[in-house]
Amino acid sequence: MMSMTMGAEASVTDVVAKIVAGDRKTAARLLSRVEHNDPAVIPVLKSLYRLGGSTDIIGITGPPGAGKSTLINGIIQQLRARGDSIAVLAVDPSSPFTGGAILGDRVRMNQHASDRGVFIRSMAARGHLGGLSKAAADAITVLDAMPFDVIIVETVGVGQSEVDIVRHANTVLLVQPPSAGDKIQAFKSGIMEVADIFVVNKADLPGADEFVRNIRETITLHYHDAEWMPSIVASQANSGEGMDVLLDEIERRRHYLDGEDRNTEQRGIRKIKYRVAEICEQLVRRQVFDERDWSGEFHSQIEKVRLRELDPYSVAEMLLAWGNAE
Amino acid sequence: MMSMTMGAEASVTDVVAKIVAGDRKTAARLLSRVEHNDPAVIPVLKSLYRLGGSTDIIGITGPPGAGKSTLINGIIQQLRARGDSIAVLAVDPSSPFTGGAILGDRVRMNQHASDRGVFIRSMAARGHLGGLSKAAADAITVLDAMPFDVIIVETVGVGQSEVDIVRHANTVLLVQPPSAGDKIQAFKSGIMEVADIFVVNKADLPGADEFVRNIRETITLHYHDAEWMPSIVASQANSGEGMDVLLDEIERRRHYLDGEDRNTEQRGIRKIKYRVAEICEQLVRRQVFDERDWSGEFHSQIEKVRLRELDPYSVAEMLLAWGNAE
Repeated sequence: MMSMTMGAEASVTDVVAKIVAGDRKTAARLLSRVEHNDPAVIPVLKSLYRLGGSTDIIGITGPPGAGKSTLINGIIQQLRARGDSIAVLAVDPSSPFTGGAILGDRVRMNQHASDRGVFIRSMAARGHLGGLSKAAADAITVLDAMPFDVIIVETVGVGQSEVDIVRHANTVLLVQPPSAGDKIQAFKSGIMEVADIFVVNKADLPGADEFVRNIRETITLHYHDAEWMPSIVASQANSGEGMDVLLDEIERRRHYLDGEDRNTEQRGIRKIKYRVAEICEQLVRRQVFDERDWSGEFHSQIEKVRLRELDPYSVAEMLLAWGNAE
Repeated sequence: MMSMTMGAEASVTDVVAKIVAGDRKTAARLLSRVEHNDPAVIPVLKSLYRLGGSTDIIGITGPPGAGKSTLINGIIQQLRARGDSIAVLAVDPSSPFTGGAILGDRVRMNQHASDRGVFIRSMAARGHLGGLSKAAADAITVLDAMPFDVIIVETVGVGQSEVDIVRHANTVLLVQPPSAGDKIQAFKSGIMEVADIFVVNKADLPGADEFVRNIRETITLHYHDAEWMPSIVASQANSGEGMDVLLDEIERRRHYLDGEDRNTEQRGIRKIKYRVAEICEQLVRRQVFDERDWSGEFHSQIEKVRLRELDPYSVAEMLLAWGNAE
């Protein structure tokens, strides 16, 4: 149905107008198509991107058991109390086979389900073409053009997929329970590079002080000349302890980004490069795997590679039309 | 040093000849450059690819604690006993910050270090350009052209990175300890799609029988019309129990692949497509992130995106020179 209405140029304008006006039904349909990496929505996304950029985007990641969903509930409550409207995008990088953690979180987050100021949307990995991080960025582009004050992007785990996804946020929270014996865990998978605020949740558990110290040492070691020195917040989301400090830090970060100096400009450029690379990758994957787009020439090249008469590097170069790029 | 000798066409031939002859010093140097995704080695890889294709490539993955390294030691012993020479490529998809597990495994595998018939090489994630799976495939291309009978590719974990890496193998073993209460774990992250042999190791632990039953049910459900029905092997790598059955299954798989019917042909084409897509992605990432390759035009486009005068989708399309592909 939507593919019919979205085909013509006029209806792109129509969908864009509805999204900008905050129409949730249109948003829900558009987000489904975005989740499936439907190429037909690209004209809509192009327009929405240019209209966005002003929403505060908070990325939250951390291992299962860190108390992430309780913490997010706390953040939502505080933001709602000051009148902000919030979109929550919960992204599960594991396959459709699992999804337990995210779905469980959803149930708890449903205390906000009847609140018109909170819009919650889940997104899971689909199909062999990958591109979940790209789909998450597209979803953010949709939500960013809607009249929300804050977007929260949540992912479970601290793997490469999670890092790629929260990279699209302006402010990244890494939430962890105390586990002083295993301090390396905190800094794997490049999360160190993207975390802006380290939250040590369940700070009443033993080892919390030592864990905070470990994080501080590692930050001091790695960030001695960084533009934004990541902060560390100890919290107990269950009782609300430390939530005010956390919200203050999020606010401080927002002011820092509003400063828009040379450093934040560099960060913005880096983010856009990642985004462009992800979109390119998705376009390439579609070209390679979508049989409908195949030319007979490409087909016969792949067959030659199978017979070892040709190599995959040459085919890749031909596909990208860069000729003798190397 | 090597960049000098590898620059001219004549020396590509020289390096290729040495690799084919089994020169390990040349291989070690080449693999280092492959690990860093050095574009200068592409001409060598092109030649080596066309010379390969006959080596049996076994991919082994599974969560930490599954007893993978003990199992691999057992497989190596059995293969050595029948006279095979073996290359082991241990790939760690977590960042340079960790690497503990793989390094630990290496120490244990060192019982084979003095054996000339066994060549062991580790490979870890490097830099922000990613591409570890692509680098692993390139390393396999090098080892495949050398006179080894079998290549074992080992990765830790069952995340998307691990799936991408073992996908380059002909036979994929998923090694797991019994954990009947958590059967979903076995099938996450698309591993179900690529596993050819399910190994339930530490089969003396409680719950092993139930876990095997669970796997069998899930396989029956998903693979009712598949070309290769994945087999399930219960093993105790510590005592050697089940290792003969496992080697028989690996052998049976090899014979199946030698059959080269329509199904294995399809599988081969699928593998090549993944390979081509990965190489394209690496080329795109280099184009986007490597400042030296930048044209001023691209630079100013990124700046326009930052100011929301342009969108990242349009830049991606221009970068791929596909114009109005959508």
